[in-house]
Amino acid sequence: MAETTQVDNTKDLFVKMALSAWEMYNSRATKLIDSLSDEQLLSETAPGRNRGIYLVGHLAIVSDAMYTLMGWGERNYPHLDVTFIKSPDKSSEDLPVKEVREIWRNVLEKVTERINAMKVDEWFAKHTAVSDADFVKEPHRNKLNLLMNRTSHMSYHLGQLVYLVKK
Amino acid sequence: MAETTQVDNTKDLFVKMALSAWEMYNSRATKLIDSLSDEQLLSETAPGRNRGIYLVGHLAIVSDAMYTLMGWGERNYPHLDVTFIKSPDKSSEDLPVKEVREIWRNVLEKVTERINAMKVDEWFAKHTAVSDADFVKEPHRNKLNLLMNRTSHMSYHLGQLVYLVKK
Repeated sequence: MAETTQVDNTKDLFVKMALSAWEMYNSRATKLIDSLSDEQLLSETAPGRNRGIYLVGHLAIVSDAMYTLMGWGERNYPHLDVTFIKSPDKSSEDLPVKEVREIWRNVLEKVTERINAMKVDEWFAKHTAVSDADFVKEPHRNKLNLLMNRTSHMSYHLGQLVYLVKK
Repeated sequence: MAETTQVDNTKDLFVKMALSAWEMYNSRATKLIDSLSDEQLLSETAPGRNRGIYLVGHLAIVSDAMYTLMGWGERNYPHLDVTFIKSPDKSSEDLPVKEVREIWRNVLEKVTERINAMKVDEWFAKHTAVSDADFVKEPHRNKLNLLMNRTSHMSYHLGQLVYLVKK
């Protein structure tokens, strides 16, 4: 029994570590986005680089796409993959900034609900982009690892979005 | 015995997940830095923002500072905290770009040696910036968590360094 408890504690701990990081970066991103004006979000983060509105949409839709990879059921915005993942910035007509802000908030809310409903052991199951055969060889390619990768991805673009803040 | 093995496997798995991410971002950063000319590294990542040379030095010295937090012994570049952590870019005389490149490579090599020498259980011990009392309440503030935070920190600045690549 003691050993089983230790297993559970270790898993709990690691899930807590990964979820804390995910929440921290989402919270930082939300705070930053809320602090930026529509005009700032429509600006390029650096000359010739992605605009704020594109990066916010990109991060939201990448989070929405986790529904599929995590096996959480129907996504909310599959039709926006074209705009924010498959195509570069400025290649399709802009959604209104207000709508992109709503998408950000809505995706974060829905994803948070799904994350909170996950049992600790579910995080250690394979995500849908890994085959059964590969997962036997590479058991670290689980759902928690996917969330950790998404956290670093958010951090990467957050470093760019912060360039919209006036100096 | 079965339970003990499971504990070990679970911990091994976590450590592998966190180390894989750390190695991936260090490898991406090294590849990017090596691909940039000295002139590019001396440029600002965006108008009025940190230059490449500062960000490379900053990331290297933050990694070097892990020696203290991890309890790995004497750091290699404590005297560079002033230049690359405590002061903003352009506030002290530049080191030659060649030297900053060498510092990057040297820190990565030394830190990798230390990481490879860590036993799995050591990653779950507290780092030196957490008090014993806090660690009892917050056991997720361990050395592996610190490494995960450093991975996201590297990713954040990598998103900025990539703006030095010519379009």
